[in-house]
Amino acid sequence: MQATKLKDLHTPCLLIEQSKLKQNISYLSEHIGALGCVIRPHVKTHKSVDITQLIVDAGNTQGITVSTLKEAKHFFAAGYTDILYAVGIVPNKFAAVQSLMEQGCKITVILDSLELAKLLGEYADTQQVVFNVLIELDVDKHRAGVNPHSQTLLDIAYALHHQSYTQLQGVMTHAGGSYECFEKSSQLALARQERDLSLLAAERIRAEGIACKTVSIGSTPTAFAIDDLSGITEVRAGVYVLFDLVMSGLGVCKIDDIAISVMGSIIGFQKEKQMALCDAGWMAMSRDRGTAGHKIDQGYGLICDKNGALIANMLMTSANQEHGIISMRKANTQRGKSTDFPFALFSIGDLIRILPNHACATAAQYNHFYLVDGDKVIKTLPSISGW
Amino acid sequence: MQATKLKDLHTPCLLIEQSKLKQNISYLSEHIGALGCVIRPHVKTHKSVDITQLIVDAGNTQGITVSTLKEAKHFFAAGYTDILYAVGIVPNKFAAVQSLMEQGCKITVILDSLELAKLLGEYADTQQVVFNVLIELDVDKHRAGVNPHSQTLLDIAYALHHQSYTQLQGVMTHAGGSYECFEKSSQLALARQERDLSLLAAERIRAEGIACKTVSIGSTPTAFAIDDLSGITEVRAGVYVLFDLVMSGLGVCKIDDIAISVMGSIIGFQKEKQMALCDAGWMAMSRDRGTAGHKIDQGYGLICDKNGALIANMLMTSANQEHGIISMRKANTQRGKSTDFPFALFSIGDLIRILPNHACATAAQYNHFYLVDGDKVIKTLPSISGW
Repeated sequence: MQATKLKDLHTPCLLIEQSKLKQNISYLSEHIGALGCVIRPHVKTHKSVDITQLIVDAGNTQGITVSTLKEAKHFFAAGYTDILYAVGIVPNKFAAVQSLMEQGCKITVILDSLELAKLLGEYADTQQVVFNVLIELDVDKHRAGVNPHSQTLLDIAYALHHQSYTQLQGVMTHAGGSYECFEKSSQLALARQERDLSLLAAERIRAEGIACKTVSIGSTPTAFAIDDLSGITEVRAGVYVLFDLVMSGLGVCKIDDIAISVMGSIIGFQKEKQMALCDAGWMAMSRDRGTAGHKIDQGYGLICDKNGALIANMLMTSANQEHGIISMRKANTQRGKSTDFPFALFSIGDLIRILPNHACATAAQYNHFYLVDGDKVIKTLPSISGW
Repeated sequence: MQATKLKDLHTPCLLIEQSKLKQNISYLSEHIGALGCVIRPHVKTHKSVDITQLIVDAGNTQGITVSTLKEAKHFFAAGYTDILYAVGIVPNKFAAVQSLMEQGCKITVILDSLELAKLLGEYADTQQVVFNVLIELDVDKHRAGVNPHSQTLLDIAYALHHQSYTQLQGVMTHAGGSYECFEKSSQLALARQERDLSLLAAERIRAEGIACKTVSIGSTPTAFAIDDLSGITEVRAGVYVLFDLVMSGLGVCKIDDIAISVMGSIIGFQKEKQMALCDAGWMAMSRDRGTAGHKIDQGYGLICDKNGALIANMLMTSANQEHGIISMRKANTQRGKSTDFPFALFSIGDLIRILPNHACATAAQYNHFYLVDGDKVIKTLPSISGW
């Protein structure tokens, strides 16, 4: 008999509230659609074919983005053929990419060095198989990518264009610096910078007489902030479908928009220490403390009752592998006292939901989720993890 | 054709150096054996049947400890019948425990409240199945457990003893506070406190005329520190088989004893930013920053060459989901300058090994490990994760 109510599930487990999921998906689909562009959804957040299908069904998408070759294989097996593998390719992955192409997958890889462009060219020559490539750009000093103003960009474009079996599709970037933008204004400024530097790079390549068809940008905060996508061919975003406390801390969503929660059971109380314990620890939440540097530090997560209603000022303040420690937020004035823990709210075995800091990190701890509508379990959604 | 050399593996992946693993296992087996006691190995660190078998083969063990019922089922299926489930039991797990018992598993549960003792008693009555129980003690104000001096301890013991279908086996505790003990002397002091308070609790129960056969204690730091185990029936420890940077930061092991590492590939360089990027990010390392509060903060991990030789002062200083950012340790004096990044050391695609902060968190990100001897891959070890 399939579990149909929350109380029938084993804890810890991961819940996704269907109404919030659908609302989050619709919102960005409409926003990007209204700007005349499409989303290439990043599936790394949930690694779920069912959720990806909901995104596609909402419209204004093309293909998918993956962060591992395991995701690529999994989604290709489920019928997704247009895949961008958005982590810099290295030689020990060439053969796996080739194998996917030979099975009919239109997979595109990224790179940001002339050295890799040449290594890929040499491999492609020996195999006589065409590899589609985007050049990764660095638009905000965040991580990887070439400087859009640099000669290196053109050198790589030239190499990919002239090598027999590499095909330059265009450029891509990820303005990961947006996770440090706490104001709408700075998010918009970075979104425009991400767009403008990508367009600049594309124009510089085209000025060399080399086609640059794809201009792919994206991060959840910049995708929400951007107001004009002229010249951009696709926007990549992932976490917006679930949202989390990092995104609400940035003001990209409200706490009430968060569709993901971990369900745990109260396993005990420590009255002297003013805390309760639950069976969801850092294995269930992940070790992500993404709000630690925010104005409001949410600990390992915010506590809701089993229906998802937030309990004011109650946090998972600390965690061990399979234990979560739940207590009240410390008052942030020197004279302020923490509220006493409301022990009367709970009995042993009671279910709670915990909103996580980072949806991608938390979801990856599970190999399935429960799609729920309040107390009702609608469906089990399989997911994958690992490499 | 099975991969037999490191270069044949896909990155990121998890390596376990066989010689270090075996040495770590032997050391504690001999130490606890010399004190006339046995280890009940905690399998939560690696969740691997193969590694557990090596521990058992080294001698001086009885049964195993698990942190999830999924581990219990997995290890029972592999032939382990004496299992301690060392996270406080809750009503929604009673049926799963009962099912294991009915299949022939001698599983013991723990609890720390009279309320749970009674709930379990009522359930056991309705099912007419005997549940074996340890009372969890709090010996260091760390987490869960009852005060060994309290009346509650005796109330729970009395309830378990007098209920028809609950059987009090004894007491257990975990001195998790040992992870805050940075000196041999404080580790020894806490180890003795863990032992003495557990023995006191057992004596108080026996003084009521109730048998208390099991006195189970343990944490890796206290298991290494303890010098006399008279009266203790078993010691639980897990992380010592692999070790990690948290344990070396506490002085429980040397960095050279760490048997676990994540292997990644160099995917690019950012010369202006004095950093290299690899394809092992926080998904591969886990988000665990357990050394952040230590005297030496090891970032997301220490970088070794592919043979496991440490590269001085090189760290994973930052991480994204599938990207690791590698740079040199910042000098810790105001006048000190960071060393320049030794770009000449690496080419694109080179393999590196990264020693993690916390073996339990890192290993759980994988569903298999590679047992290696230097460059040679000896065996693939399956593991499990999730619930």
